[in-house]
Amino acid sequence: MPIIDAMNWRYATKRMNGKKVPQEKVNRILEAVRLSASSMGLQPYTIIVIENEEIRKKLQVAAYNQPQISECSHLLVFAAWENVTEQQANEYLLNVSKTRGVTLESLDGFKGMLMNIVNGRTKEEKYQWAARQAYIALGTALAAAALEEVDSTPMEGFIPEEFDKILNLKEKGLRSVAVLTLGYRDSANDYHVKEKKVRRSKEELFINMA
Amino acid sequence: MPIIDAMNWRYATKRMNGKKVPQEKVNRILEAVRLSASSMGLQPYTIIVIENEEIRKKLQVAAYNQPQISECSHLLVFAAWENVTEQQANEYLLNVSKTRGVTLESLDGFKGMLMNIVNGRTKEEKYQWAARQAYIALGTALAAAALEEVDSTPMEGFIPEEFDKILNLKEKGLRSVAVLTLGYRDSANDYHVKEKKVRRSKEELFINMA
Repeated sequence: MPIIDAMNWRYATKRMNGKKVPQEKVNRILEAVRLSASSMGLQPYTIIVIENEEIRKKLQVAAYNQPQISECSHLLVFAAWENVTEQQANEYLLNVSKTRGVTLESLDGFKGMLMNIVNGRTKEEKYQWAARQAYIALGTALAAAALEEVDSTPMEGFIPEEFDKILNLKEKGLRSVAVLTLGYRDSANDYHVKEKKVRRSKEELFINMA
Repeated sequence: MPIIDAMNWRYATKRMNGKKVPQEKVNRILEAVRLSASSMGLQPYTIIVIENEEIRKKLQVAAYNQPQISECSHLLVFAAWENVTEQQANEYLLNVSKTRGVTLESLDGFKGMLMNIVNGRTKEEKYQWAARQAYIALGTALAAAALEEVDSTPMEGFIPEEFDKILNLKEKGLRSVAVLTLGYRDSANDYHVKEKKVRRSKEELFINMA
């Protein structure tokens, strides 16, 4: 399916039918997410993939009881690093060095740019920056799911502190920033299925400077 | 091309060859961006699409002279709303009402949720929130460009205040948050072409709760 058709097909699914998404489809969506771009390539976030029903039921309570959390197949919680530390930057540099077969010394210029972020920004600024990168990955996940004809719901309507507690994210240095359900629409019970998509017009959304 | 192949094919192109991207491809990429999801569907951002060479040359100076800004075909500047106002929320509600053929009164519950954001958050919080939504659109643009086999460079390496000045964004209530070039790789001069993509492994990026 062309991406525009996929984007038109998808909508924020509010009721799902509990059907499981085949593992190979989930794997392809996650692989697209893994390949997402991020500033400097750091990927300063972690994604929690939850099939477990008991955990999803707990999370549902912390998400204003929205039914798609328990009715979905997989729940993805995008969690940004609450800080970006020298250690994390060094681990990344090691990954670059190993993957590309180059010495760490050859990455000194790049290291300088990374350390400017690590040492030149406040913890809050780094967290906000990390959250934005996670949203690129969220955008990728939304497109990839639609291309697989898997329904999804991007959600900010949850209590991050509660999610962090239930998933023990604080002790991992993470903060939940967005949620995505994966599953299949329950067309009989989701009145949103029939609603027209509302978007700003081309003329409003874009300013052309030819 | 399957999305995973497209995501593997793409890379942050540092040198472009000046070739123009056909308008129909640009249009499809922009349409995918237009269809992007955002919190409450508000799309609190505007995207400036710049072909004009003179403007791109000025912007290049404000982006540490990175060559892809003048070598690209189209430059997209993602600009978040610097505030989210009651007027903007009401315009959106009018769009929902018109598009779906429902009365404004029937949207009262939804309006309450929107106004909670408009009136319950500081200007800075709203701007940060708007910026995150713009990054979902950026993620969509990256995937859509790759699927069209159009090269792109997502960039934060520019001086937002300078961009805002050159593009008169402040008077439009906008703040530039990210840039995306669209064009074609200059394989002879971009040593990044040959570099292996570096990404965190599945085991590092995802936490599975089965």
